[in-house]
Amino acid sequence: MAGKKVLIVYAHQEPTSLNGSLKKVAEDELSRQGCTVTVSDLYSMNFEPRATRKDITGACSNPEFFSYGVEAYEAYKKRSLARDIIDEQKKVQEADLVIFQFPLYWFSVPAILKGWMDRVLCQGFAFDIPGFYDSGFLKGKLGLLSLTTGSTAEMYTKAGVSGDFRYFLWPLQHGTLHFCGFKVLAPQISFAPEYASEEERKGMVASWAQRLKTIWTEEPINCTPPWYFGQ
Amino acid sequence: MAGKKVLIVYAHQEPTSLNGSLKKVAEDELSRQGCTVTVSDLYSMNFEPRATRKDITGACSNPEFFSYGVEAYEAYKKRSLARDIIDEQKKVQEADLVIFQFPLYWFSVPAILKGWMDRVLCQGFAFDIPGFYDSGFLKGKLGLLSLTTGSTAEMYTKAGVSGDFRYFLWPLQHGTLHFCGFKVLAPQISFAPEYASEEERKGMVASWAQRLKTIWTEEPINCTPPWYFGQ
Repeated sequence: MAGKKVLIVYAHQEPTSLNGSLKKVAEDELSRQGCTVTVSDLYSMNFEPRATRKDITGACSNPEFFSYGVEAYEAYKKRSLARDIIDEQKKVQEADLVIFQFPLYWFSVPAILKGWMDRVLCQGFAFDIPGFYDSGFLKGKLGLLSLTTGSTAEMYTKAGVSGDFRYFLWPLQHGTLHFCGFKVLAPQISFAPEYASEEERKGMVASWAQRLKTIWTEEPINCTPPWYFGQ
Repeated sequence: MAGKKVLIVYAHQEPTSLNGSLKKVAEDELSRQGCTVTVSDLYSMNFEPRATRKDITGACSNPEFFSYGVEAYEAYKKRSLARDIIDEQKKVQEADLVIFQFPLYWFSVPAILKGWMDRVLCQGFAFDIPGFYDSGFLKGKLGLLSLTTGSTAEMYTKAGVSGDFRYFLWPLQHGTLHFCGFKVLAPQISFAPEYASEEERKGMVASWAQRLKTIWTEEPINCTPPWYFGQ
C-alpha cells in the first residue's frame, strides 16, 4: 500500500539462499506497491548480538552492579545507548510493518537476530512496566515472521516428533512481538527448502510474493494460547 | 556424586548477580560432592554468537553457496571447525550433566547463549539425520536449565498473561536438548529476583544448593507435549 513503511530484519549469511530470495521478493513487491522498504541485513552489518556494558555509552546508573535491563532502560531515557541500537530503534519506530526473515535455528531465531531483539527492544522503547502486551509501546505496528525450516512440515505437526509448528512460535510471536504491542500476522513458513526441488523452491518464493500483494488487508492472528496450543 | 563431570554454561554479565550466585553455589556444592566442574563463562570469554564463515577454518565444501549447517557438518568431520567451537564440544563431550545458567531474555536464552547452541551443537557432533531426539548423539547426558525471570510466577501460569512457564521451555528443552539426546531434568526457575527481598534471594540460592545435593537421584522429566501443554 503506497506510503506504508516496512522494515525487513534479515538474518542469513548467503544472498543466493532461499532466505535471500524471500527477502528480495518482499523488497521488490512492497516497493512496487509504493511502500518504503528498509532492510537490516544483520550478517552484512556484523550486528553485535551480545548485551554488554558497551551498549551504555555514558556512565552506568549503578557502576557497582551491572544489570543490563536496568542500564539499557536508563540509557534509553538519557539517549546514551550505543549508536547501532539507536539506529535500529529509529527504523522500528518508523515502520508500519516489521518482517523478520530467517532460517529456524534450534526452534528459534539465529543468535544474531536474538541479539537484535535483546538489544533493540529495550524497556522504555518497546515496553514499560506497565505498558506491555496490548499496551506495548509498538502497538499500531504489524509484525510477521517469515522463516525457513530444516525439518519437513510433517515433523511440525501435533503428532510429529517436533510438535505443532505453533508451539515454537510462542516465545517469538507472543513473548516478544505481542509483548511489545505488535499485532502479529500469520507466519510465512517455507518448510525444508533443502529437501525441495528447484521448482518447489521457486513456488515458495512465488507464494510469498503473492501473499504480499494483499498483506495490508490481512487480519492479525488472535495471539493467545488457543491459537498456539488449542485443537 | 564423586567422579561425575559437570559443565555449567553461564551467561550473565555481573558476577554479583543472582545468576552469579546460583552459578557459584552449584560449583561449590558439586565440587564438594567430588564432581569435576567446568564453567564456560560466556561473557567473560566474549563468546562469539554469530554463525559465520569464520567458523570454518579450511576451505568450504561449496564456496559458491554458503550453507552454515552444511559447512559446519563437513568441518566437524574434517576437524576444521573454529577453535572455540572445538573447545566447547570437548567440554560437552566429557560432561555427564550440563547446566545452563541464565536470565530469561524474551522467553528464551540471551543471544550469547543462543550462539553457543547454534555453533557448538552442530550436526555430526550433537546429532545427525537420522540420529536425533532419543537417538541424539548426546544421549546418556543430563541437561538442566537454571534460569531467572523478570516476571513473577503468577504471570507464568496458564491463566497468566505470559502463559504457563512450560510453554517457553519447549524450544529449549525439547527442540534443543532433547533433540540432541539429552535427558532433561526439571528446570530450576528463580522467579523475579528483582522484586524479591534480600532474604528471598538467599532462599532461592539455598534451595538450588539443597536440590543439587540429590540431583543425581532425580528422574528426568517426560519431555513430550503433555508435560508442556497438558493439563
